[in-house]
Amino acid sequence: MNVNYPGGIKPCGHPIKQQKHHIESAANRGMGFEEDINDTNAYYLEKGLALIYKRPTPINVVKVDYSHGAKITQAFFQCQSTTDYNGVYQGHYLDMEAKSTRSKTSFPLNNIAPQQVAHLRAVKKMGGLAFFIINLYALNETYLLDAQYVCDFYEQKPRKSIPVSEIKAHGYLVKEGYRPRYDYLPLIDEHFLK
Amino acid sequence: MNVNYPGGIKPCGHPIKQQKHHIESAANRGMGFEEDINDTNAYYLEKGLALIYKRPTPINVVKVDYSHGAKITQAFFQCQSTTDYNGVYQGHYLDMEAKSTRSKTSFPLNNIAPQQVAHLRAVKKMGGLAFFIINLYALNETYLLDAQYVCDFYEQKPRKSIPVSEIKAHGYLVKEGYRPRYDYLPLIDEHFLK
Repeated sequence: MNVNYPGGIKPCGHPIKQQKHHIESAANRGMGFEEDINDTNAYYLEKGLALIYKRPTPINVVKVDYSHGAKITQAFFQCQSTTDYNGVYQGHYLDMEAKSTRSKTSFPLNNIAPQQVAHLRAVKKMGGLAFFIINLYALNETYLLDAQYVCDFYEQKPRKSIPVSEIKAHGYLVKEGYRPRYDYLPLIDEHFLK
Repeated sequence: MNVNYPGGIKPCGHPIKQQKHHIESAANRGMGFEEDINDTNAYYLEKGLALIYKRPTPINVVKVDYSHGAKITQAFFQCQSTTDYNGVYQGHYLDMEAKSTRSKTSFPLNNIAPQQVAHLRAVKKMGGLAFFIINLYALNETYLLDAQYVCDFYEQKPRKSIPVSEIKAHGYLVKEGYRPRYDYLPLIDEHFLK
């Protein structure tokens, strides 16, 4: 939203090195999907359908120089302790994590941080809507999954990744188009608000 | 949440100079009330009543040094374009701006940014709950006000500040205690969810 990431890199978990030659790196792929979700949300806002914000990546500010206004001179990106998106849809609180994978067979769970699972559990407990929207890049398909299902899988860990067959069985295929790019709201109407 | 402000200063609107001798400055006063609201929300989360997050102050990252991991070497605080808090209460989306004033007679509207009014209008339009929680420091009273009322006053601007008499007439007095410090949820139950 208001944070710019030079190089389009959104770090999480471990130190990031600049990899200009890796323009198709995992981080950049993720950013492409994120941008499409941002565009989708901008469309929804424009149409008065929903207000879904991208949370900024948290930054730990270490040093500030006050000699000319307030200039931050040392700071570090921190891992997102909640999720990528939250907002309001038809009065309901909505929380969502957007992920993209190039795997043809499964969605690796190491993409998810334990504190994100805890956060999504809390959202569900408070009566909010909570989802994962997972882009299967190699299959050119995107699915909306109830966070409950993903959190259960994550904690029971029958495997280190959710097989595509399970994603198809438990998720809902998101219709893709030009605008909105990923039209996920109708799936929420149909499967979660009836 | 994840952003530390050296000196406890949360800037907005104009450049901030370090004022160590002004420990009781406007910014610090505001931070004290904010901390009390954070404590209140932590209590609500602990009791499983609501999940209300403090939004981090947005930071505009200008330069990142990738020679040792990713170290931000130049960045600036930005004005909050939304509000201080949002989250979920009984499934409802809740958005809230917390403000404190030392004025004995009124709440100055220059405390509110136009983009915050636009944001709160959008939240209301989408069916969310939206409030101002205003601490009248000199009177030792805190009121919960529907954002609708404050936004209307802001845009019609009959005055440059909302008189205390109006705050008392249109707002709801928040019960203060030890834990929770400002118990605002019962007012939402009583006046907005019936």
